[in-house]
Amino acid sequence: MIDYETAKQACETYVRSLENSDLETLLDLFADDAAIEDPVGTDLREGKDVLRAFYSEACQGVAKAELTGNPRLAGNEVAFPFNVTAGAPGQEVVINIIDIFKFNGDGKIATMRAFWGPNNMTS
Amino acid sequence: MIDYETAKQACETYVRSLENSDLETLLDLFADDAAIEDPVGTDLREGKDVLRAFYSEACQGVAKAELTGNPRLAGNEVAFPFNVTAGAPGQEVVINIIDIFKFNGDGKIATMRAFWGPNNMTS
Repeated sequence: MIDYETAKQACETYVRSLENSDLETLLDLFADDAAIEDPVGTDLREGKDVLRAFYSEACQGVAKAELTGNPRLAGNEVAFPFNVTAGAPGQEVVINIIDIFKFNGDGKIATMRAFWGPNNMTS
Repeated sequence: MIDYETAKQACETYVRSLENSDLETLLDLFADDAAIEDPVGTDLREGKDVLRAFYSEACQGVAKAELTGNPRLAGNEVAFPFNVTAGAPGQEVVINIIDIFKFNGDGKIATMRAFWGPNNMTS
């Protein structure tokens, strides 16, 4: 079972890596066979190569990212609220997101599910 | 697909019903065969009778409940952050929670998963 400090650190590292476009640190959080659903309801993206392509693009769009509340760890899953500021200067949009990480036995993210939609964006 | 206003209203009604111990309004949000996992990592509780017993007890413990951010709707699932104040007067504990509702085709909650743990409580 993952401990709270480790789970919290994963959330903080994820958000900081998005903001800093630190792709290697971000990808290192994930298991090699990790699967992500972003946003929830869309097709799964699976495996490190696919995640590398996805996050490479995502990082380019993120100007700022910050946690907006405590990570909630329960079992091997953590839910955390955060904001992302995206878009070109002068046209920024703030997106309110909640992500769920499920960890494997090695403390790596096995699955990530991202909850956000058009009603969570403000310019 | 459920629309944002309906999903948001379900979150608001849920939190308000917890605070007001309005058991019937709360249970009416759920499908008859709904299953809840509270907290995540524990055994599922399934069916209206089981939910009635669970929420009857839960309501008694809740002094206050309030949303702490926007519901995030994605597909047929909504994630929302909220705080619950529980415990006897003078010994209250505030718990930071994130719940996920998955809706069925009738707009009722088919599954609920609650993310919170000992590190999300402050007295």
